[in-house]
Amino acid sequence: MKINPSPSFSIDLRVESSLSRQDLENIIATAEGVCVASQGIESPYGFTVNCRDSEHQQQIFQTLENTENTTVISADEITFRSHIGGKIETFNRLDLHAPGAMSIAYTPGVARVCSAIHEDVTRADALTIKKNMVAVVSDGTAVLGLGDIGPEAAMPVMEGKAMLFKGFGGVDAFPICLATKDPEEIIKTVKLLAPTFGGINLEDISAPRCFEIEERLKAELDIPVFHDDQHGTAVVSLAALFNALKITGKKMEELKVIVNGVGSAGVACSKIMLEAGVKNLIGFDRTGAIYKGRTEKMNFAKEWFAEHTNPEGFTGSLSEAMHGADLFLGVSAPGCITAEDVKNMAKDPIIFAMANPIPEIMPEEALPQARIMATGRSDYPNQINNVLCFPGIFKGALRCRAKSISEGMKVAAAHAIADLIPADKLCEEYIIPSVFDEGVADAVADAVEKVAREEGLARPRIDETALYKIK
Amino acid sequence: MKINPSPSFSIDLRVESSLSRQDLENIIATAEGVCVASQGIESPYGFTVNCRDSEHQQQIFQTLENTENTTVISADEITFRSHIGGKIETFNRLDLHAPGAMSIAYTPGVARVCSAIHEDVTRADALTIKKNMVAVVSDGTAVLGLGDIGPEAAMPVMEGKAMLFKGFGGVDAFPICLATKDPEEIIKTVKLLAPTFGGINLEDISAPRCFEIEERLKAELDIPVFHDDQHGTAVVSLAALFNALKITGKKMEELKVIVNGVGSAGVACSKIMLEAGVKNLIGFDRTGAIYKGRTEKMNFAKEWFAEHTNPEGFTGSLSEAMHGADLFLGVSAPGCITAEDVKNMAKDPIIFAMANPIPEIMPEEALPQARIMATGRSDYPNQINNVLCFPGIFKGALRCRAKSISEGMKVAAAHAIADLIPADKLCEEYIIPSVFDEGVADAVADAVEKVAREEGLARPRIDETALYKIK
Repeated sequence: MKINPSPSFSIDLRVESSLSRQDLENIIATAEGVCVASQGIESPYGFTVNCRDSEHQQQIFQTLENTENTTVISADEITFRSHIGGKIETFNRLDLHAPGAMSIAYTPGVARVCSAIHEDVTRADALTIKKNMVAVVSDGTAVLGLGDIGPEAAMPVMEGKAMLFKGFGGVDAFPICLATKDPEEIIKTVKLLAPTFGGINLEDISAPRCFEIEERLKAELDIPVFHDDQHGTAVVSLAALFNALKITGKKMEELKVIVNGVGSAGVACSKIMLEAGVKNLIGFDRTGAIYKGRTEKMNFAKEWFAEHTNPEGFTGSLSEAMHGADLFLGVSAPGCITAEDVKNMAKDPIIFAMANPIPEIMPEEALPQARIMATGRSDYPNQINNVLCFPGIFKGALRCRAKSISEGMKVAAAHAIADLIPADKLCEEYIIPSVFDEGVADAVADAVEKVAREEGLARPRIDETALYKIK
Repeated sequence: MKINPSPSFSIDLRVESSLSRQDLENIIATAEGVCVASQGIESPYGFTVNCRDSEHQQQIFQTLENTENTTVISADEITFRSHIGGKIETFNRLDLHAPGAMSIAYTPGVARVCSAIHEDVTRADALTIKKNMVAVVSDGTAVLGLGDIGPEAAMPVMEGKAMLFKGFGGVDAFPICLATKDPEEIIKTVKLLAPTFGGINLEDISAPRCFEIEERLKAELDIPVFHDDQHGTAVVSLAALFNALKITGKKMEELKVIVNGVGSAGVACSKIMLEAGVKNLIGFDRTGAIYKGRTEKMNFAKEWFAEHTNPEGFTGSLSEAMHGADLFLGVSAPGCITAEDVKNMAKDPIIFAMANPIPEIMPEEALPQARIMATGRSDYPNQINNVLCFPGIFKGALRCRAKSISEGMKVAAAHAIADLIPADKLCEEYIIPSVFDEGVADAVADAVEKVAREEGLARPRIDETALYKIK
């Protein structure tokens, strides 16, 4: 598969040359670099160039270096440069250099605020960062496709996640990478951290450990705990499915669903679909179909699959199972299914191929056999991206001081995401909003808060003005 | 003692009135409010008024309410209003809505940064927030003068501390309040959090537990661990002492020092003075002098005092001990010593009365008997404020990736602080810089980094440009 140049392999070049800027852009284009920005009326010029990979970055640089009357003054790898010093920082909401600010934000004024919380601990939800702060907690055991790379190496992902919370939901989030893989230690630590945070987002913790950690924390903490790898993916793929069914006229109850990959995301996607009415769902791992009675390479999560899915006890191959399937949902690995498999599906096949960055089948191959195709990629239509879900979920949960995030709140989030696409815009290539669409997080937050209140999971509103209003 | 109106009891008033702004200011002044700001050419007017306490705030408000042809539209308590939602937030160092930013800060670009750290974990010091992020850790057991108020109620102080790190040192800091008082659990938790942070600032943990926690963490972690209540106070009071000795011509070795209060700050101040050359130092707690052989109300820290101080085995009262003393250093409670005690001291008495907010003796009482007087207060000359120390200490330690903060680094910090006052400015009323003086944190950071390098506690510099420079 040909990889396209992308911003994740972008370079900033500063070039001195007797050639024109246009000439240099042409040279970059000939070397297959995509020049996404250029500056300078005369030499030296600046170019930002998307490349395919590190080698291609070097090639673009060398091509310019080798061009007559041309010297590269500097060439920076943008992704690494952007990570120097980390990607988030703290910001003081008061200027300590303003008159009196020290006495308000710190001693002696702060003591009164401490006493007020000591009198009534629920005031911490209004008077401290707990009001709007989520911990993004990982042990670094299942980071992206990289696996168990350890807590330090997981930090850039958790920092990025924290940025997404802030950038898309206005929710503050702080990355916490723990130097342990022991579920008991992780559970214990997160519980001890809870006074500081309004919610816990678990991230990139390997299955099946993640299930136990999440279940225990949900049971033992009274703030929302959410494992985004599971439930974020589940919510957004369910949103996509809601809209796919509107287009195809299929019904949840009548679908034949194949789920490939039964890690944390596969389990959560399957659970939420069963709750939404799906009856016939078969899960696959590398070993094959998961059925009642299978003994090979089973675990806690797969036992759940054996118990709750595959009602007909199918034991064949993935390709065989694809015959007559309505939905293929992949959270597995590149190239797991073929165009032939798609051909064998029922009428109006729906493909959610979410392996990242390379899906189970590329859209070019799956289409036109597939009626609807979604991936996890931003460079194709219908990106199933958790960012549509978690900022809004937490925004809503924190706003109503929810004790937890229920199944009802998740399904409400899925409906809110699906409903953001107006009926007249809904089509095969637009079943799911873009992460940049306006109002996604607010729509999700509103839906989540409404259900939390209905289900009695919200706590009473704190009258914040009463905390400081003399009149 | 008469309390003066202060910004920590400030109110914002919005007032509709047929009186002039000046008339209203006069009314506020008559009610003993200090109007620090006023706005409006015609009614309604805005006033910011410092008061003495909550009752006084109500009085000022009522006075205006009761004034003829005058209505208070709104009256806000500023300290509480400033705390709504907490005092810090996170800030994204990249705009995720910029083209390509998502692919750089998050998947797929971030995976390369993760892999680079996985290959060489020291790169986390350059490529993650660890480079400049300190955890401000407390269990809420000894918060200001409030005692054991619990982790949620301690948060406003830890948030304030985090603000001070950022506002005065440019160091990012994040408050972590733990739901445990068990030293083992605190130690364990902080160790598990260490991958995220470049340093640990312990705060408001009660003595003697704080000593064990700090010692263990220093021994078991390879990043700087600093208990500011101990060492921040010690460093800044030593800085003040350096300059006090310059003025009085006294010598460390010849001083008679009385330390009242042998909690975490008292121990640390005493230790650093002994290291600086003091020979004759006597510690006092509520029970009296601490001497070898005392059995009443002893603990781990007091045993240290008994062992290392009070060479002559003094067993009398605090007042008796004050006879002939050169320095009284109080980290105890209001009103512990009298003007009479100061009179009985040696020539050129030095008083560091650091109980907060009300010192062991007020400057009005101690002067003119005392030659030099310092307190913890911002409204008198010579404020001994930890803010002079900890932002710069961590700034220097993080910059050179120091493994720990040594005694040498602390003494260097004290000298740097003392030396910020030029010889021609040094006088009885100016022995210590203001926290708002320019360059304090940088001077401290430079001194700390220099000593860390000399002592072999600094790690090799990371060539950050090599991480992203193609040329």
